[in-house]
Amino acid sequence: MEIEKRLEAMGLALPEPMQAPSGMRLPFANVRVWGDRAYIAGHVAQNPDGTLAAPQGKVGGAVTVEQGYASARLTALSILGSLKRELGDLDRVVGWLRVLGMVNVAPGFNTTPNVVNGFSDLILELYGEAAGRHARSAVGMAVLPFEMPVEIEAEVAIRE
Amino acid sequence: MEIEKRLEAMGLALPEPMQAPSGMRLPFANVRVWGDRAYIAGHVAQNPDGTLAAPQGKVGGAVTVEQGYASARLTALSILGSLKRELGDLDRVVGWLRVLGMVNVAPGFNTTPNVVNGFSDLILELYGEAAGRHARSAVGMAVLPFEMPVEIEAEVAIRE
Amino acid sequence: MEIEKRLEAMGLALPEPMQAPSGMRLPFANVRVWGDRAYIAGHVAQNPDGTLAAPQGKVGGAVTVEQGYASARLTALSILGSLKRELGDLDRVVGWLRVLGMVNVAPGFNTTPNVVNGFSDLILELYGEAAGRHARSAVGMAVLPFEMPVEIEAEVAIRE
Repeated sequence: MEIEKRLEAMGLALPEPMQAPSGMRLPFANVRVWGDRAYIAGHVAQNPDGTLAAPQGKVGGAVTVEQGYASARLTALSILGSLKRELGDLDRVVGWLRVLGMVNVAPGFNTTPNVVNGFSDLILELYGEAAGRHARSAVGMAVLPFEMPVEIEAEVAIRE
Repeated sequence: MEIEKRLEAMGLALPEPMQAPSGMRLPFANVRVWGDRAYIAGHVAQNPDGTLAAPQGKVGGAVTVEQGYASARLTALSILGSLKRELGDLDRVVGWLRVLGMVNVAPGFNTTPNVVNGFSDLILELYGEAAGRHARSAVGMAVLPFEMPVEIEAEVAIRE
Repeated sequence: MEIEKRLEAMGLALPEPMQAPSGMRLPFANVRVWGDRAYIAGHVAQNPDGTLAAPQGKVGGAVTVEQGYASARLTALSILGSLKRELGDLDRVVGWLRVLGMVNVAPGFNTTPNVVNGFSDLILELYGEAAGRHARSAVGMAVLPFEMPVEIEAEVAIRE
């Protein structure tokens, strides 16, 4: 429970499971465990009760880079919430491997890495360099579901 | 051959190998097997003879959500066709792990999960929850090859 | 050192580590090794000294298909440079598995596979069909960091 102690010391709480907006069905697993790997579905920023976190919109348009960074950081908490429910203990994540950071961009905005850093910075602070370092892409999407500014999927190594 | 029996009972057939449009060279593997994993290239909807299935275009524009859903379902059949040719028996797929659903979107269209559900619903119906459940992202692309409405790549666990 | 001999025979050199443009922080690993896998972050075309290679811009707009193909080929060299620094010997890559080729597209451009072929052709020439063949997607992004025309991420199997 080391990771959860660190979260608590940082004053951070994990959100409830994602609540799909009305009229939307999400027939997939937030985390799929297979052997020593957990495959993490695309997550977005949530409020503590599981609803979608504001602001929605395109980074470089209605959403600033700073708000995009905050959205990526909240997305990390969403993912940690799903991992906690699936694995029981976040310490079971022994290696972050692959991260695909997708940014909902307005025309002309191309500094997407500065947005996805909100995710990487938190994961590295929580897990340290040895477990937390990950290969990453940070790219600009034409759109993301529910017009969220950031969506992130990942793959991690776990202790079985 | 349980999965193929189910496909037959549902009246579904797998398409022939993809035929690249003229002037296009596709120097990659539709399925790459390594140990107990199969990595599945981006697939699109095909007709039974392997040609690209209509309609082409952007979802939310020339292509409706319902047509996008149908394209995602046909994409599942394309993938199953490639897996059948590579593995011999679709029962060798013992776990669907990761799915990246990419939707060719018109400006303003953002309910991409409703489109990619055409893929997930069929895989879950065929494989059941234990083997079929998968982590998924469903995101909006600026464009997809040949202006297809949906492209899906995936990773599955296989029986060696 | 067979792969490096082939590179030398082809007159190709690997670039220095990527230099982030000023004002940009890239807190992630270019290559993340875990067991018999190496996860490769999104890479872009670089000059020999590690700076970003021209031209920048959107394929189908300021950048031609031929220039996009050349950018994808240079991206393969960037990835090989990162793998060389991480693994010591490029022969340790025993199987290319998954490649996500992302193309920064101008409106109306949709022959993205012809661009990403610049990557696949070089990998197949260097590694041969048995080790080099890979599952691939080649899709169109709204934007890529630094307005580069191509970004590619991948996963390979390695000899431990």
